[in-house]
Amino acid sequence: MSELPTKADAARESATDLLGPGEAVLTFDVGGTDTKSALIARDGRILGLRRTPTPRSDSDPAGVVIESVTALAATLRAHYPEEVPAAAGLSVPGLVDEAAGIARFASNLGWTDVPMHELAQRALALPVAFGHDVRAAGEAEARLGAARGFEDSIVIAIGTGIAGAIVLGGRPHSAHGYAAELGHTLADPNGERCPCGARGCLETIASAGAIARRYRAASGVKVAGAREVLAAAQSGDATARLIWSEAVTAIAEHLARLVATIAPQAIVIGGGLAEAGDALFVPLGRHLDDLLSFHRRPLLLKARFGDDAGLLGTALAARDLLAHGGVL
Amino acid sequence: MSELPTKADAARESATDLLGPGEAVLTFDVGGTDTKSALIARDGRILGLRRTPTPRSDSDPAGVVIESVTALAATLRAHYPEEVPAAAGLSVPGLVDEAAGIARFASNLGWTDVPMHELAQRALALPVAFGHDVRAAGEAEARLGAARGFEDSIVIAIGTGIAGAIVLGGRPHSAHGYAAELGHTLADPNGERCPCGARGCLETIASAGAIARRYRAASGVKVAGAREVLAAAQSGDATARLIWSEAVTAIAEHLARLVATIAPQAIVIGGGLAEAGDALFVPLGRHLDDLLSFHRRPLLLKARFGDDAGLLGTALAARDLLAHGGVL
Repeated sequence: MSELPTKADAARESATDLLGPGEAVLTFDVGGTDTKSALIARDGRILGLRRTPTPRSDSDPAGVVIESVTALAATLRAHYPEEVPAAAGLSVPGLVDEAAGIARFASNLGWTDVPMHELAQRALALPVAFGHDVRAAGEAEARLGAARGFEDSIVIAIGTGIAGAIVLGGRPHSAHGYAAELGHTLADPNGERCPCGARGCLETIASAGAIARRYRAASGVKVAGAREVLAAAQSGDATARLIWSEAVTAIAEHLARLVATIAPQAIVIGGGLAEAGDALFVPLGRHLDDLLSFHRRPLLLKARFGDDAGLLGTALAARDLLAHGGVL
Repeated sequence: MSELPTKADAARESATDLLGPGEAVLTFDVGGTDTKSALIARDGRILGLRRTPTPRSDSDPAGVVIESVTALAATLRAHYPEEVPAAAGLSVPGLVDEAAGIARFASNLGWTDVPMHELAQRALALPVAFGHDVRAAGEAEARLGAARGFEDSIVIAIGTGIAGAIVLGGRPHSAHGYAAELGHTLADPNGERCPCGARGCLETIASAGAIARRYRAASGVKVAGAREVLAAAQSGDATARLIWSEAVTAIAEHLARLVATIAPQAIVIGGGLAEAGDALFVPLGRHLDDLLSFHRRPLLLKARFGDDAGLLGTALAARDLLAHGGVL
């Protein structure tokens, strides 16, 4: 985990000036499978961006993540000695109380109520902006990406799971981490039990993971992911069509409810499922039109940054922290 | 409409100091059936509070309302010459763009895109704070009532229809009037068509109006309102129990979705249906508990002001207007 970035990683070093000039900061986006890390240079370039497996431990699930992040930080510092980071950003999945600095719960990583902010500050010996991965991605899309310029927007990331970020009046609405649980919102009261404990969560029907799992269960055919289910649907497989269409319907109903309650000007869809492009966006837009009446129809936009949104948003948070005096 | 307040009305004059000292303002809460009006004294007393029928006109639905409000204003001014109003508040139902000053749509009053703010300012010759009736009620509950002290709260008014107000970070979230359409949020994708044009809106299942209508349709028994349906359910009428329980279930599912997306600390329930008390709040709380897992369970609170919340919130808006220089 502490080897230098590979050639392929190095090729991803960005010369673009997305983030603009500012202090150098470290940025870590810890995901359920992989951790993305980079050093943001003073001129805004993204240096050493790489993806490493997120380590797991039953006995100390948060400790091994902090160790891994610390090792990644040491590698980045050693590789770019001219860019001395003044702060770091750390984002994690699950339920995150940003104000308290606590990672409350992550079903896939297995931690509960970890004082992640304090642990990270101590391990990195830097001020740390600690947050939620999808809220960070939402921030990146809101400030630099597809939702830029909209006062009220929602970002929904549909991958293995489903998570979201809500920006209202230009500011993220997090409610101490409890808001924007778009994947764990009731979709079907008679649906299956979700690992979170509730019944019929959107994630059990419409995540890329659920689409693959439901297709396997209904057809007996082994597929690696939602992409294969979509391909099967497009070549006329009736089961695949049904599973895909149920997912699109559940997402459309969910978006319709968000429109009636929050009324965002734009809904940005990211995550692996957004890569389906028109196969997702066209039927989704049509369904949504059918479900709305006087409501304000939001723009449905594909996320700009794809997989790197969380890392960028986390870097923004680290820069923000310094702009606000270096304390969270 | 221009007679003086009756003795019964006068008895409602409030000596309490809810609104506190400030400028004298007129306040009008135009409802689908009745209009409530009052003069707020400089010491905060509510003077001449009364309820008059909201006039209807097919040819000029907004004009007759403005005429009626103007006449009510004249009566209040004549009756309390020592309290010279410096501004007025006017709230109306339906879809309201407060920032633009436009009453966009009210299905029961029959108007579309009326520049109500300008019309009212001209007719009353006063600066007017123009807004939405339930958002005004939400403001009153948030600042003076049941939701006071909560950063994030939702007020849902369940009467003939269902409407809501959302307060986030202590500020109302209206999205130019399109937000908080809690009654016109999808409850049942296979439900009946709503007069708004969408299908299966919460209002078609769970409003007091819908409960009475659905019971009449299912049983053939004429009932005047939801109160009678509840009484029938409590004395063992199976049809009434079913209709009541479907309404409670639909509200609980709706609240569960609001919890997962917005995560309010408190949900305040007002309107006629809230008068059912425990018969509503107990099963609703139980249903909500069943539907949530790691989510933050909000407090379910009964609205403090009942029917007068809209009038009070409208008065607050008029006072706010003056505090901000007298222009909207």
